[in-house]
Parts: sequence; C-alpha cells; structure tokens
Amino acid sequence: MHGNVIVGQSGGPTSVINSSLVGVYKTARDRGARTVYGMLHGVKGLLDKQYVDLSAHIRSDLDIDLLKRTPSSFLGSCRYKLPEIREDRETYEKIFRILEELDIEAFFYIGGNDSMDTIKKLSDYAILVSSDIKFMGVPKTIDNDLACTDHTPGYGSAAKYIASVTKEIIRDGLVYDYPVITILEIMGRNAGWLTAATALSAGEDCEGVDMIFLPEVAFDIDAFMEKVKQLCQNKRSVVIAVSEGIKVADGRYVFELKDHVEFVDAFGHKQLQGAAKFLADKVGAELGVKTRAIELSTLQRCASHMTSRVDITEAFQVGGAAVKAAFEGDTGKVVVLDRVSEDPYICTTGTQDVHKIANIEKKVPLEWITRDNTYVSDDLIHYIRPLIQAELSPVMVDGLPRHLRLTL
Amino acid sequence: MHGNVIVGQSGGPTSVINSSLVGVYKTARDRGARTVYGMLHGVKGLLDKQYVDLSAHIRSDLDIDLLKRTPSSFLGSCRYKLPEIREDRETYEKIFRILEELDIEAFFYIGGNDSMDTIKKLSDYAILVSSDIKFMGVPKTIDNDLACTDHTPGYGSAAKYIASVTKEIIRDGLVYDYPVITILEIMGRNAGWLTAATALSAGEDCEGVDMIFLPEVAFDIDAFMEKVKQLCQNKRSVVIAVSEGIKVADGRYVFELKDHVEFVDAFGHKQLQGAAKFLADKVGAELGVKTRAIELSTLQRCASHMTSRVDITEAFQVGGAAVKAAFEGDTGKVVVLDRVSEDPYICTTGTQDVHKIANIEKKVPLEWITRDNTYVSDDLIHYIRPLIQAELSPVMVDGLPRHLRLTL
Repeated sequence: MHGNVIVGQSGGPTSVINSSLVGVYKTARDRGARTVYGMLHGVKGLLDKQYVDLSAHIRSDLDIDLLKRTPSSFLGSCRYKLPEIREDRETYEKIFRILEELDIEAFFYIGGNDSMDTIKKLSDYAILVSSDIKFMGVPKTIDNDLACTDHTPGYGSAAKYIASVTKEIIRDGLVYDYPVITILEIMGRNAGWLTAATALSAGEDCEGVDMIFLPEVAFDIDAFMEKVKQLCQNKRSVVIAVSEGIKVADGRYVFELKDHVEFVDAFGHKQLQGAAKFLADKVGAELGVKTRAIELSTLQRCASHMTSRVDITEAFQVGGAAVKAAFEGDTGKVVVLDRVSEDPYICTTGTQDVHKIANIEKKVPLEWITRDNTYVSDDLIHYIRPLIQAELSPVMVDGLPRHLRLTL
Repeated sequence: MHGNVIVGQSGGPTSVINSSLVGVYKTARDRGARTVYGMLHGVKGLLDKQYVDLSAHIRSDLDIDLLKRTPSSFLGSCRYKLPEIREDRETYEKIFRILEELDIEAFFYIGGNDSMDTIKKLSDYAILVSSDIKFMGVPKTIDNDLACTDHTPGYGSAAKYIASVTKEIIRDGLVYDYPVITILEIMGRNAGWLTAATALSAGEDCEGVDMIFLPEVAFDIDAFMEKVKQLCQNKRSVVIAVSEGIKVADGRYVFELKDHVEFVDAFGHKQLQGAAKFLADKVGAELGVKTRAIELSTLQRCASHMTSRVDITEAFQVGGAAVKAAFEGDTGKVVVLDRVSEDPYICTTGTQDVHKIANIEKKVPLEWITRDNTYVSDDLIHYIRPLIQAELSPVMVDGLPRHLRLTL
C-alpha cells in the first residue's frame, strides 16, 4: 500500500495531456495509492486548496477511455511560476502544509519546460526542509522542445494533425486554374518542430509544401520574395509553411514588421499572431497573385479527433512511469522517452534530473535545416514519422466525438 | 448501351464533392456509358478542350474508395460564368461543337447555385438549337444555400467538422482560470447554415457556444458588446460563433468597419475575412479581457478526415441519380434531396427544374433564429443533426489520410 498522491496539469494543453493524467491515475490506483487527488488549475489552484478526489470524476473504464480522447487539460491548467525559494519561503510553506494535510506521498506535475520549473523548485525545497514528499515531472508539450528526451508526448499528435490538414490544404490549393499562394502559420515560438511536421505531407499522393521556415534561423525577407517569385513561374499552387515565431536578422518577429497588438503572458512570452497574414499581404501586393493566409491555430493543441496512437500510448506510459519511479523512491526527476531502436521504432521511458530540463528549450538542430534554410532534412522527417503512426478513433456519439467533462 | 458522358466540377469544393464524381462515374459505367469524360476546371477547361477519360484515372475499386475520401475537386474547378446566350452565341457554339466531337449524350455539372447557372444556360441553348444532349446539375456546396432541396451534399460534413472542432475549442477555452473570450469565424457569406452548426456542440458533455450570429439578420454591435459584458460576469470562458458575412444595419460587413483589403471574385462576391478578429480586438480593448479570434478557414471545405457518412453517401447518390435521370431522358434539371421522414431520417432523391435553383440563395428562415438574434432554434438543430451522423474513416497510410491525386 502507498499513501495519497496528487497530480496537476500546467501550461498549454495538448490533445493527449489527459492520457498522461489517466496514466498517473490508473497506475497509482493499481499500485496501491489510497487516494489520487487532482489539483485544479495546477499549483495555482492548489495554493487556494482547489483539488478533487479523482475517483469521484473518473468512475469507470469507459470514463478512462473517454478521458484519453478528451482535449484540453481535464483538471484545468495555469501559467503560474513559483517565486524563488530564497525570496518567498511563505508560498512554499503554504504548499507543503496543504500537501501534508492531504498526507501526500507523491506529487506529479504534467507540463512542459516552464512547468518543470515548479517540480525543480518544489523538490529543491523538499530537500531544504527534509520533506519525504516525492516530486515527479511528467512531460507534455506540442512544441517538442523539452531537453533530455527523444521527443515529448503531445508532439506526435500535433504533428499528425498538422501533416494531415496540410495535405488537405495542398489539395484544396490546386482547385482553380489560376495561381494561388497559401501561407500556413504553425505554432512554435522558438522551436520549429511543429512547422517541420508539414514536411510529412509530401509523398506518393501529395506534392508536399514548397518551403518551410523555422524560427531557428533568421528569416530573410528578400530571399523569401525572390524564391516565391521563382516558384510562381513553375507552379500554379504554392504552399509555404512558416512558424509563428520566425524573426528577421535584427531580432524582430516578422509579424512585428507591421503594427500588431501584443499580449505578454506570465512567463514573459509574447503572444504571436500574423506572420502568415503579413507575408501573404506582401506577396499579394508585390506579385499581384491571389494569396491565402491560414493559421492552424488552437486546433494544433486540441484536435483530439485526430491523434496518434503512438503518442497517446506514450503519454499514458510517461504518467505511469512517473508513479512507478516515485513509489520506488525517486524525486526531483522528469520522465523522459529514450528511442532505443529506429527500425522497428521502440521507445522506453527513463528519468532525468529536473535541473537538466526545467526552463531549457530544445530547438531543431541546424543540420536538419536545409536548402538555404527553406526546408528540412530527411533525417528530421525520419525522426518525426514514427511518432504519428496509427490512430485512436474518437468515441462518436450522435455524430460527434465524445469527451469527459469535469463537473464540480 | 449508352453514348459518352462528361462530368465537371465547379465552384468551391466540399470534402465530399468527389463522392458525387464517383457517383456519376460508377453509375454511368454500370448503366452502359461508353466513355466517361471528366472536364478539367469545369466548363472553362472544356472550352480549351481540357478533359480526360476518367477510366484512365480511376482504375480500381480502391481508387473509388480513395476518391470518396479525397478533398478538393479531383478534376479541378472554376468560377467561370457563361455569357448570356443572346450576347455571345459563339461560346455556346464552341462548347456544343466540342461536345459533339466527343459524341456526348449527357453532361453533368457538380456545383452550387452559381454553377447551376451553367446548366441552365447550356440546357436553354440545347433547346434553342434542338440538341439532344442532356444537361443535369448535381448539387454540392458546404453553404447549404441551394433552393428546392432539403439540404445540399457537402453541408453535412462541413457541419460535422465545425461542430466537432467547436467542441474541442470550447474545452480548450476553459483550460486557464482567467476569463477568455473566443470568437469563431465560420464561412457563409449570406447564409448562416454553417455557423448555425456550432449549436450542435451543446450536449451532455459540452456547454456549447454562448451566442451565434448569422448573416440573415443585421448585427447590432452595441447589443453584442452589452451581451458579452453580461456573459463575462457569469462565465470564465465565453465562446461566440459569427458568420464571416455578418453585416451591420447600414449594410456594411462587420469586417469593413476596419480597413481591410478586399478581393472580388468572378461572380462579384467580396472575399471576406476578419469579422472575428475585428470583434475580438474590440472586446479585448473595451472589456480588458483576453480574447482569441479563430477562423475555421479553408478546412471547413476540405477536412476530408472528418466527414459524415450520411453526407458522403448522399453525395454519391445525387451523382448516380443525375445519370439515371439523364439516361431516362431528363435535361435541364438538378437532382435534389427530399426528406421523406424525420424519424427515422430518410431522404430520397428527386429532380427539379434548374431555373428554380440557379442563382438563388436559400437562407436560414428567420423563425429559426432566436434569443434576440443571438442563437438558433431547436428546429434548426433537429434539421441539421441527421446530416452529421456516422463516419467514413480515412484510409490511413503511414500515419496520414490517403488521397487519390489526378496526374496528367
């Protein structure tokens, strides 16, 4: 038997983040945890004593399977950054008091590199005050920018969605007999992993995208215009994928080249929008062709109707592995995925010290960016391909995908 | 045995328009047509003698099933409007010469109300010159705005896609613990059928959208702001669906209230964009809350990965019915869908005179718009619900939906 555990979700959701929640919940129950609590809106909600007994909300095996297919964070999320321990011990005392009241043996936090900062600080504080509570990070992010892991749960499904709809948009772009330039805007502030996934669209039945621009390298707007002009001479439909975070050499975002409203979140990230629109307007005005700007938008992180079974399974596994590790005494660690074989693709879980992961962004290696920074290498495509394999069909009820909703 | 037939696709595609093409192709072959030609880019391509023998491109039953699942118009499309017969007989002489060279017995055109104008004029001209060629319209449009038919193939799948992703976006909007107002922009210039489909999101597992604004009624911006303010007082996440074509009382589109680039197509339709963005910016600035504008964009007409089996089956059937009618001597008609039973839902095909359908837009009846023009009635929801039922799973190859591509 084990004591009680608590699990929270933090940062932007993915379409499989609830599969990790289920992985934590089911594994903790199977391994003898007494009560599995869920904190509402992450550690921010916990500070307000907002939590639930998960067994009251996940009541059957059917609920478990619906939850795996439910987008957005079931427990709610937050973008709350804990203060430095030396600057504000009170917050930590409060959190640990609540955890002790709940008789918590292990604390699980499902999140990306910002959220892993929370695990780092809480586990550091536990050492400082000689607390026995274990703190484990469960990785998730569509951005795939976590260090020390082959890839991140959430990325495979986002990549599959992006590649699928890119194929559909490419077909759509060819419908008329006049030239159309389509610019797709893909999420990714500083890392181009998601935008790179548009390369998967190319194959026996699809031309693929013509150019791909990642934020890892400076965006050269003159070279871009020149290449678009060349492409237009040979092709009726040109489709270009750009990351929302592409920047010109002087460091300005492309969307900043025009006036735009900015929104800065709690972590100081600018909310981006409009690179594709800006470029489409410019191309349309200068080349006199019809252009379309399409933002794949929020659906990249919540299209649960199109997930990768590899991804959703791994999301479950990292949740389970975190529980297993904590129950065996690990703390201050993050579960990672190790690709032990390429062919066949085999991944196992491992753990890494949270200090090596928190607040670090893993970008696309420059050697995987090719053709004068306008495309990606076969190595990158081979890296992504196994992550989008197979499906987990939605449970369709009365014509629509069914979800599990938390009702309080 | 029958002679040769020719089929074309026109106007904006739907995700099931190729199912109608297959319906024409397979039924014509099964009923003894010698050759089934496909015109490339509709009647515009035909004028340049651009056509193919479809049997060279649809080579197996597998191809037929892939084609049903392929987005965009397989044969390419056009937005070409035939001149008035009295103003330019030469164009008609040219078309009929080409059709006679090909020994065409029947001409099928898959399109919306603009495209049916082509069938009207060609069948009128056939009477004028005593030609035996039969001209039949096959309905398609995501807009559902064709007259004389219960609904239009293409609409059900678009409605299913819209309702599905609306559910996902609603879940996503609740992820944080601060207020977020999400404004969804849905296609629909003058008819609100697509936007109304967001109402299907409400159910046992989903709150649904809070307000729905259709282009059939004038958009009152002050009343809108007032209602948003009220909603914000009681709800953390507010989700509002607006049609791209909403207009204020003086006739200006909402997006025109701000400077925007306009693009006018061959039929004189303004290309719209930006109603949601405009409203989100306004709400954000005046109420000081976080807002998101999400355009569902092109995917509404090309998301073949999420189609309705009812829709894709009916799309096939209207193609087949057009061939059957033409081979029985009908001309100058459009195949329509008649809902002969509500419970269980049963639809049959019929035909209507093209003069009753061409160039006419069927809008959402005003009695189906409720709550001070901010929502839709249960009658409207009951009307749409059967059209989104059941699925036709994509054929997944190496992790992505497989399509059939026309290679020349």
